[in-house]
Amino acid sequence: MFRTAELGRKVSKEEFERQAPDLRIELVDLQQALRQADFPVILVFAGVDGAGKSESMNLLNEWLDPRWILTRAYGPASDEERERPEYWRFWRDLPPKGRIGQFLSCWYSRPFMDLVNGAIDVATFDEYMARVITFEKTLADDGALILKFWMHLSKNAQKKRLKALEKDPNQSWRVTKQDWRHWEMYDSFMFAAEHLIARTSVADARWSIVEGEDHPYRSLTVLYTLRDALKHHLDRRRTLARADLPPAILGGGGGGVATAAPPVTDGLPTVLDALDMSATLSKGDYRKDLARQQGRVAVLQRKARARGISTVLVFEGWDAAGKGGSIRRLTRALDARQVTVIPVAAPTDEEQAQHYLWRFWRQLGRAGRVLVYDRSWYGRVLVERVEGFAADTEWRRAYAEIRDFEDQLVQHGIVLCKFWLHITKDEQLDRFRRREEIPYKRWKLTDEDWRNRENWHAYTLAVNEMVERTSTHFAPWTLVEANDKRHARVKVVRTVADALEAALADGAGKT
Amino acid sequence: MFRTAELGRKVSKEEFERQAPDLRIELVDLQQALRQADFPVILVFAGVDGAGKSESMNLLNEWLDPRWILTRAYGPASDEERERPEYWRFWRDLPPKGRIGQFLSCWYSRPFMDLVNGAIDVATFDEYMARVITFEKTLADDGALILKFWMHLSKNAQKKRLKALEKDPNQSWRVTKQDWRHWEMYDSFMFAAEHLIARTSVADARWSIVEGEDHPYRSLTVLYTLRDALKHHLDRRRTLARADLPPAILGGGGGGVATAAPPVTDGLPTVLDALDMSATLSKGDYRKDLARQQGRVAVLQRKARARGISTVLVFEGWDAAGKGGSIRRLTRALDARQVTVIPVAAPTDEEQAQHYLWRFWRQLGRAGRVLVYDRSWYGRVLVERVEGFAADTEWRRAYAEIRDFEDQLVQHGIVLCKFWLHITKDEQLDRFRRREEIPYKRWKLTDEDWRNRENWHAYTLAVNEMVERTSTHFAPWTLVEANDKRHARVKVVRTVADALEAALADGAGKT
Repeated sequence: MFRTAELGRKVSKEEFERQAPDLRIELVDLQQALRQADFPVILVFAGVDGAGKSESMNLLNEWLDPRWILTRAYGPASDEERERPEYWRFWRDLPPKGRIGQFLSCWYSRPFMDLVNGAIDVATFDEYMARVITFEKTLADDGALILKFWMHLSKNAQKKRLKALEKDPNQSWRVTKQDWRHWEMYDSFMFAAEHLIARTSVADARWSIVEGEDHPYRSLTVLYTLRDALKHHLDRRRTLARADLPPAILGGGGGGVATAAPPVTDGLPTVLDALDMSATLSKGDYRKDLARQQGRVAVLQRKARARGISTVLVFEGWDAAGKGGSIRRLTRALDARQVTVIPVAAPTDEEQAQHYLWRFWRQLGRAGRVLVYDRSWYGRVLVERVEGFAADTEWRRAYAEIRDFEDQLVQHGIVLCKFWLHITKDEQLDRFRRREEIPYKRWKLTDEDWRNRENWHAYTLAVNEMVERTSTHFAPWTLVEANDKRHARVKVVRTVADALEAALADGAGKT
Repeated sequence: MFRTAELGRKVSKEEFERQAPDLRIELVDLQQALRQADFPVILVFAGVDGAGKSESMNLLNEWLDPRWILTRAYGPASDEERERPEYWRFWRDLPPKGRIGQFLSCWYSRPFMDLVNGAIDVATFDEYMARVITFEKTLADDGALILKFWMHLSKNAQKKRLKALEKDPNQSWRVTKQDWRHWEMYDSFMFAAEHLIARTSVADARWSIVEGEDHPYRSLTVLYTLRDALKHHLDRRRTLARADLPPAILGGGGGGVATAAPPVTDGLPTVLDALDMSATLSKGDYRKDLARQQGRVAVLQRKARARGISTVLVFEGWDAAGKGGSIRRLTRALDARQVTVIPVAAPTDEEQAQHYLWRFWRQLGRAGRVLVYDRSWYGRVLVERVEGFAADTEWRRAYAEIRDFEDQLVQHGIVLCKFWLHITKDEQLDRFRRREEIPYKRWKLTDEDWRNRENWHAYTLAVNEMVERTSTHFAPWTLVEANDKRHARVKVVRTVADALEAALADGAGKT
């Protein structure tokens, strides 16, 4: 794979100086155009030590306007990073639309070094790469331009380079013992690199292998690749924006699962029809049961806190289904200092400039905390789908994106519960009417609630498909029969207690 | 001071239940009104262990809508927090406008415990309290409603309370050995508490001492205090917004320094007039000097990085004075992975919902990094003053706020350099004309630049006052004669190198 990158290709210094001025102007112009565009650029630099990774990043910072470039390299995770899923640190560094983010090794680094050192086998490595692929696909589907540069040196060239650096008094600090250790492992490095590149060079996130020996040659290669890709991507996005093309062309789809809509039509029952809506609880039983379950949650969450186990709770449901009331019954059992309730409102402009999952990643809390979502990322496949705020391809691919997001939460040891609070259409009408009558509840009822009600059927289909596609073994939906508030509240609190209990029995968390 | 809080005041459970429903509706309504208001509410709970601090916070979370309440308690600082000035963790937790943030002990906790334990003396404690006062004043001046509750128990009552908790199997976990140790230190606790309250009970951030023994009494006290203060503050802000009152009423002023504008008028020279604008550097000297200074910066920043010393560089100056060019000459010498260049653009809506310094606090980077500001917090006393975007009181008090902010940076060991790049009015005109001619520079010149030029004199006065009020011994301004770009660039890079060198010689940073 690397033979074409060991051809000894060179560009003379004069030739470089001849081409540089025009190329630079082109790049600066493109960067200006990018600032108005609706996508970010993500550049990944990886490869052999001494092949010019940092030099290339420095060069871009020098040639382009550094104010619109984010440069990131990753050392050992901080404690705040270790308390969240691994990708949290990458999500929080993503450039917003209109900017360039350049990353050194980043999400490739840890699995790659583990493979080289023999700490993991190829199968495990491939699992990590599956995560990388999903991550990059998620960003590319959203419009990001992703360019990955693998900077290569032959074994001899690397040796020469390290020796040359060592001799230069201004550069010798850059060569560490680790570099020489890596050099001795050159062959296993190359085996791993080849595997990595083959595995992760996919449609919208291909690797470019760059021969790294000659400075002018490798710089021009990186710069021309960026120029051409950026130019092309700007054109493509502009065309798409203008042409109103069939959504399939925008890429995406169901994310690996069949893209066809499930055959739910007017006549056929949905998961919601299967619920026993007659479930009730007497006042006396309610008091007793609720107190018991709240007590369980209080004790279990204290234990979870001590073990560093975080909890994420998602509440979705019809308007007036009692989400707020259930959340309050739950938080009452918890220490306010450990809980954050997040109402999903309109995204801020910082959030708008990122992938729609970005805001949820950034909200993930430190170890041992409870995060309660009053509506959540499922808005993408509910309100955004039904109201047409998201394009067909966008909400369709969201199922896979959400599954992956939740998989990362659960793999990190986070206790995740998802509730759909279900009421019948008649019950909703009753509740709306009662809200109109009680002065201090009137603010809760908006015109939008009445409008949403008109789309009851469309929402039912969306809920059905949401449950079908995102109720996984690691993150199942709990459907709550909520015509009876007492029954619903106890079921919610009990479900959380059960989930915490299971996680603690599992021995999750810090030990 | 606490004698009035040991009167054994009680409210019966029945009386509490009688008053609760109406009070709750009032509070919920006020919270709704707050959501539309232009200020946040900051509640601080501190006091004797067992006097109901957490219980009060939980109660508020239960009674009000928890979605608009942020609750924060502070354990030991995380490594990401330790790498920034101490107040970074508080700034990042501040509630935006329209929300309530409730804080446990927070900025009082560390100095208070240090004083109780004898780790610091009263004079040092007072220094820390001066910081607290400035912090709270900064927020209050910006409109925040700050309420601080000191929950009190007599020595006997505390003993009774701890014993009662120990006996209750559901609560006994809450009593730790530390609580009993604190109880034994009750008297020095009280001495410190009295001093703290006396010292920090200032105009817009007074302490309320709450007798904490009786649960219903203390709850009603907290809730009524919040209700009255919130109602009053909402009215007051509304009146202010309507009445267009003389700015003095809005509070603020020069922050401890005389508020009168300095006697700079048309005839009198400003600091800028004192610059020798004839300073130049030949092309040959420039190449040599620049390379030498860049080399120094490169080596010194590597050392600073290793020692965890961060650098913050502020660039201000006339349009076309060469800020971008100087920044690029500087960043060229640095490793792109350690540098972030921040262009000051319009604040995002998240930033708009906070104090204007909030965005700069949140941007502070991890240890050893370089942060370069292309325009900065000085916008408050430059463009916002001259264009009238900030009220008189707002930009006048900004001098003190900025001094305090920079003091915190420097005290944390951050190397701070501030540059004003000065060119003459004629030179600016030349540069504007040249920009119009060069195609790839044309985007840099906007109508705003021409408009700013018309306010040259007003800006000169603003710059003069800015230098007078914010050029401190710990954070002096460097005025750069920039008619000659070569001279300016070398001076900038050399100043940074000198500052790094001095900091390293000082033995700053991790050792």
